[in-house]
Amino acid sequence: MKRSDSANIREASPADFDAIWQIFHEIVAAGDTYTYPRGTTKDEAFRLWMEIPRLTFVAEDAGTVLGTYYIKTNQAGGGDHVCNCGYMVSSAARGRGVATAMCEHSQQTAKRLGYKAMQFNFVVSTNEGAVRLWNKLGFATVGTIPKAFAHPARGYVDALVMYKWLEP
Amino acid sequence: MKRSDSANIREASPADFDAIWQIFHEIVAAGDTYTYPRGTTKDEAFRLWMEIPRLTFVAEDAGTVLGTYYIKTNQAGGGDHVCNCGYMVSSAARGRGVATAMCEHSQQTAKRLGYKAMQFNFVVSTNEGAVRLWNKLGFATVGTIPKAFAHPARGYVDALVMYKWLEP
Repeated sequence: MKRSDSANIREASPADFDAIWQIFHEIVAAGDTYTYPRGTTKDEAFRLWMEIPRLTFVAEDAGTVLGTYYIKTNQAGGGDHVCNCGYMVSSAARGRGVATAMCEHSQQTAKRLGYKAMQFNFVVSTNEGAVRLWNKLGFATVGTIPKAFAHPARGYVDALVMYKWLEP
Repeated sequence: MKRSDSANIREASPADFDAIWQIFHEIVAAGDTYTYPRGTTKDEAFRLWMEIPRLTFVAEDAGTVLGTYYIKTNQAGGGDHVCNCGYMVSSAARGRGVATAMCEHSQQTAKRLGYKAMQFNFVVSTNEGAVRLWNKLGFATVGTIPKAFAHPARGYVDALVMYKWLEP
């Protein structure tokens, strides 16, 4: 299996968005992990993933976009030392460590931008691979919101708040 | 002490915003309970409190605005059955049960709009009066985010996620 080490992570440009949209649309239309509406259009996705966040990145290998992440400030004012990130990996690139590589990269990015902590506001509890991975990468489950997500197959399921303080 | 029962709660109009701004500005400039930037301008406040939310209300007594709250959808997509509210009471009207009256009103509003649950994403843990009140009104603390808020006097303090399922 190809290693994630071969993935190059760099800031995304608008020219990357066709590739990002393929990944975004596949994941969001499935409706089982993100709270974006399943029918989110390409224009709305551009705004949500490329414009609202502070920075957006892609992980690519030989010109193919394998995954993407954004980073933004999670709360303003007295909460602005905490950032929030979202990650998506193409179905073709799963199991190659792309999410791990992006999450580690995002933590470096966060520290570079001056954030002290990273928060995931809404990890769907049935997304067990993600929960396990974030745990492995040092994120603690600091909240469990009962029945906060309407899963298309399982009905109402819990959402988790996960959090990591980035400084030792 | 005057009872909150005397407060009339109704939908806010732009004409109420001067009164709302007095309350908003006093609370936000103090910087110890909300994550709006302390220097939030009146125009920004209008957008945050009157435009972005789905509905905004005022509690008034004999033409004087005592408090205000908004209601909005907390997450899109699979999270859109959960609403979020924010409440502010003027310093002159504290201790009159205005927050209680508004929170109870907001739960009725939420049910009328079809929401199944209400979530407070970021209750500053040192805001003990609020935490106690939300508990009393049936909200559970479902998350504790360590050091997520930079309190102007106490440094980094925890923020709580509070939640109530609105149906029996």
